Amino acid sequence: MGTAQTGSRLLQGEATRSRILKAAMDLASRHGLDSLTIGELAKELEMSKSGLFAHFGSKEELQIATIGAAETLFGFAILKPAESHLPGLGRLRAYLENYLKYLDDRVFPGGCFFSAAAAEYDDRPGRVRDRIALSMRKWRDLLEEQARIAKTNDELLPDVDPLQLVFELKAFTHEANFSRRLLDDEDVQGRARRGICDRLLNAASDRGRAALIHKLS
Amino acid sequence: MGTAQTGSRLLQGEATRSRILKAAMDLASRHGLDSLTIGELAKELEMSKSGLFAHFGSKEELQIATIGAAETLFGFAILKPAESHLPGLGRLRAYLENYLKYLDDRVFPGGCFFSAAAAEYDDRPGRVRDRIALSMRKWRDLLEEQARIAKTNDELLPDVDPLQLVFELKAFTHEANFSRRLLDDEDVQGRARRGICDRLLNAASDRGRAALIHKLS
Repeated sequence: MGTAQTGSRLLQGEATRSRILKAAMDLASRHGLDSLTIGELAKELEMSKSGLFAHFGSKEELQIATIGAAETLFGFAILKPAESHLPGLGRLRAYLENYLKYLDDRVFPGGCFFSAAAAEYDDRPGRVRDRIALSMRKWRDLLEEQARIAKTNDELLPDVDPLQLVFELKAFTHEANFSRRLLDDEDVQGRARRGICDRLLNAASDRGRAALIHKLS
Repeated sequence: MGTAQTGSRLLQGEATRSRILKAAMDLASRHGLDSLTIGELAKELEMSKSGLFAHFGSKEELQIATIGAAETLFGFAILKPAESHLPGLGRLRAYLENYLKYLDDRVFPGGCFFSAAAAEYDDRPGRVRDRIALSMRKWRDLLEEQARIAKTNDELLPDVDPLQLVFELKAFTHEANFSRRLLDDEDVQGRARRGICDRLLNAASDRGRAALIHKLS
């Protein structure tokens, strides 16, 4: 087989894999990660089950690949656009703002993919739960890293604990996702934004306020 | 049939119903509300399916009765003990403290029954979702009622919006439930307590601080 032909086959395989994972994310977001079976997905994609098995050998493999794909999307929607902000309070705020925008934009039809998956799997030990926990820890660690940089750069008042700050800010974003989904309360996004803004201004030193102000003004 | 005999039968029926609902809450808390089928529960209780059907005509009836039973338990663990506190900031704080204690005490083995059920059903329109949403609204309304009383009684600083305050405080309690379950971070209860304490002290007028102080000191 020529190299060009092999390359083209590989590309085609990648395209199919992407198409499968996109459908898998949609299905999981709407009906839960546990609903993600090879059979259901084959029906949705009008593919044969054996075709799907060639890409993902088991339901568990498929679930784990889907979480990975959702993480990539999360990176594009939330992390990447924040990189234009300087590390510290500015980038911390950008992460949180982008998360709220990701909810507004309905990047996943069923709200935050990870919050839903976390609530579904927190009680079920195994590889899927571990993979979700890893995603959640990565997100927390990114926020904490920026809060620590803010602390080092004297952007926070001396008595502010950066980890406590992240706990509180993250709580506002999750509450927005949660209350909007179930309480049909559209105003919660506004409440989360106000909570984040007030809390950041409250924790910031003069230098920190300067880092925030071009966005907050 | 004599009245005494009818009465005794009724009592026996009640006892069986309670036993069923207790097992149902445990099962739902561990494996999700959707896992609550008449068949599963009959196996767990070593009862016949027809015996269970005599009490609950369908899976949906059973689920709704289970949510009601969980609400009663929530009332005993969280609402009732707060009634010894004066309405306003004192009772608001007692509600939140009792919620964190309810997590510590593992009243339900799988964390907060309602948060789990909400995440599971927020995407599935129907009577079960409506019943969960009703529970969540009741809880929010109770918190908001106390914050409004605090406002009327001048326990809050003039610029504090009582609904915003409740959004933020409630966020801390949910974040504690969420992060402890998945991130295996035992410290989150402490973070939630500190967030609540700081936020309340921050929002309180001198009068409000007096209402809080016998607990916070």
